[in-house]
Amino acid sequence: MKIAIPKETIAGERRVAMGPDVVKRLVEAGNKVVVEKDAGKLSFIPDEKYKDAGAEIASSATDLYRDATIIAKVRPPQENEVKALPEKSVLVCLLDVLRTPELAKNLAEQKITSFALEMVPRISRAQSMDVLSSQASAAGYKAVLLAAASLHKFFPMLTTAAGTIAPAKVFILGAGVAGLQAIATAKRLGANVEAFDIREAAKGEVESLGARFVEIKLEEETATEGGYAKQVSQDTTALIQKTLLKHVSEANIVITTAQVPGKKAPVLVTKPMVEAMRPGSVIVDMAVEQGGNVEGSEIDKEVEINGVRIIGPVNLPSTMAIDTTMMFGRNVHSLLKLLIKEGELNLNFEDQIINESCVTHDGEIISERIKEMLT
Amino acid sequence: MKIAIPKETIAGERRVAMGPDVVKRLVEAGNKVVVEKDAGKLSFIPDEKYKDAGAEIASSATDLYRDATIIAKVRPPQENEVKALPEKSVLVCLLDVLRTPELAKNLAEQKITSFALEMVPRISRAQSMDVLSSQASAAGYKAVLLAAASLHKFFPMLTTAAGTIAPAKVFILGAGVAGLQAIATAKRLGANVEAFDIREAAKGEVESLGARFVEIKLEEETATEGGYAKQVSQDTTALIQKTLLKHVSEANIVITTAQVPGKKAPVLVTKPMVEAMRPGSVIVDMAVEQGGNVEGSEIDKEVEINGVRIIGPVNLPSTMAIDTTMMFGRNVHSLLKLLIKEGELNLNFEDQIINESCVTHDGEIISERIKEMLT
Repeated sequence: MKIAIPKETIAGERRVAMGPDVVKRLVEAGNKVVVEKDAGKLSFIPDEKYKDAGAEIASSATDLYRDATIIAKVRPPQENEVKALPEKSVLVCLLDVLRTPELAKNLAEQKITSFALEMVPRISRAQSMDVLSSQASAAGYKAVLLAAASLHKFFPMLTTAAGTIAPAKVFILGAGVAGLQAIATAKRLGANVEAFDIREAAKGEVESLGARFVEIKLEEETATEGGYAKQVSQDTTALIQKTLLKHVSEANIVITTAQVPGKKAPVLVTKPMVEAMRPGSVIVDMAVEQGGNVEGSEIDKEVEINGVRIIGPVNLPSTMAIDTTMMFGRNVHSLLKLLIKEGELNLNFEDQIINESCVTHDGEIISERIKEMLT
Repeated sequence: MKIAIPKETIAGERRVAMGPDVVKRLVEAGNKVVVEKDAGKLSFIPDEKYKDAGAEIASSATDLYRDATIIAKVRPPQENEVKALPEKSVLVCLLDVLRTPELAKNLAEQKITSFALEMVPRISRAQSMDVLSSQASAAGYKAVLLAAASLHKFFPMLTTAAGTIAPAKVFILGAGVAGLQAIATAKRLGANVEAFDIREAAKGEVESLGARFVEIKLEEETATEGGYAKQVSQDTTALIQKTLLKHVSEANIVITTAQVPGKKAPVLVTKPMVEAMRPGSVIVDMAVEQGGNVEGSEIDKEVEINGVRIIGPVNLPSTMAIDTTMMFGRNVHSLLKLLIKEGELNLNFEDQIINESCVTHDGEIISERIKEMLT
């Protein structure tokens, strides 16, 4: 069975669907793996390394896709890429179909069996396939480093001959995977860390990392059954903003990670809150691509308001390509092991993971979630 | 007695000679402190804060310097600035006269009593005045953060659902103040750290921070009486390069901090050593302004050789302006306390600190070191 790994085409995307370690295991299991020329280049993996792992290198998309049974990618295929995929092949990638459900139509037309990695259910059996978590973890880590590299102050407390320097105050908004990794990283660097999440369940996790949890009593339900944050009412958002003002204004660094799957990100830091911060403070809005948690943040830009710099980073996992490609590949490998039985494709739609993450099959959109969105 | 704090004029310099905390103490001790308008702006200190501390704000250099007894600065005065200083006033700053001894002539002509902060002797009584140490500490910290923010890999070891990620390998060359702070910061972030210094005395300090010391047996003397590194022979340099190759080639990050006061920095990492590193690795050459420890590094640029990025940062202390201004001010304050007795200037040239750090006085160059350099 042939597994094809194309080079990513979206600008700025450095990752590739798998590294040589996973290629090696797939080849050892009897599969043929073909990697597009230079696919790993931006993840610092030369073609040689893939060859050493047993892959063939294809110098054109035609050679890459010919007779391919499975195509593993990082980002959704663009329109011309969908047309290049062989009919009836299986596509595994971050499809982003909750934001762009129209893609599902194109994939169904091309008779692609497509799996959206972001729709793999959050059950313990699927943890090793959880691309959202592995990539968010790298993003949370990098966000803190960007902030620390940009801040004109030490993170740790220092006792020097020139007197004591107080530790930096870091406030993390949203304690999902990215937020927790951000907390852990800021703590490692010696900062004084506070965190907030609308999900009360986050409190224990935040405290176990040594940070203080900012508690706000809310009247409404704030988490989905799957454990993700829910969209809340305007009144609740206003109450949250009011309580957060004091904590934001005292922080040297604010990192916002609050996202609601498939929805616009909530505004947690308003312009008056930014203006209440000290000059020299730094905000990283990790939700900037989803509409932003911070009023005034801009995609891929650094904006300055009253001496406070707001960084709106794009695709942070791509800035950690060595490790994110490795983790992404291992996540994909776990899913592939579920799709392949004894060297053959074996799609068991009774399996919860396959059922919930499969978007199109046999010329139809089969995901109930996506079907609903399109009607 | 009037103490004047000018705004720095060298491009990219964000620091100012003292923060409001030191101004307050000088004013409380009966001095008049005048700060030039916007002097603290780039250190995120608005004029208001200086006023609250008891300073006057001068909107022109004329107002600032009129009747000033002491002028405290960060960087050396440029030619036109020397001319603006009142005759017989006392100038305290980083004069950089070991590199540009000609400045001493101009200062003597203008009858300035000048103190070079970088020439304050390294004795325990002068620790609180040690600007080189306080600023190098900030530089070493920031160098690691720049490297970490640029690396496509985690520093800490992580055990995730997608498998284990090995910690980054960081190799620090030169274990002076900057190197030790770099080691401490890389360790905080969870990296696997090795360090090297030609001074054997550094071994204990490196190991006490939890890093491995790379030992090379050298035949010649490598440290001055003051504890600084000495310039060594070409043979010794070649031996060092040979031994370091293995350690450099295995590192994800190399940070070089090796400087010899008043001399060109030694080349420790040659082009073949850079080429032996893995693509994606990052080098920070902290000695780039002194000629560079790394072959191919360029001032204020990021150079890429075979996928290895070499960062040549300029004036790192200035990128930590909130804390470096605070520490610089406290260092200056310690020296001023030695120069001022009961509200009057009191220069005791028998005092080792005053004797070794004073460059010009009464129209003469009085520093023996500088006099030698000029003949």
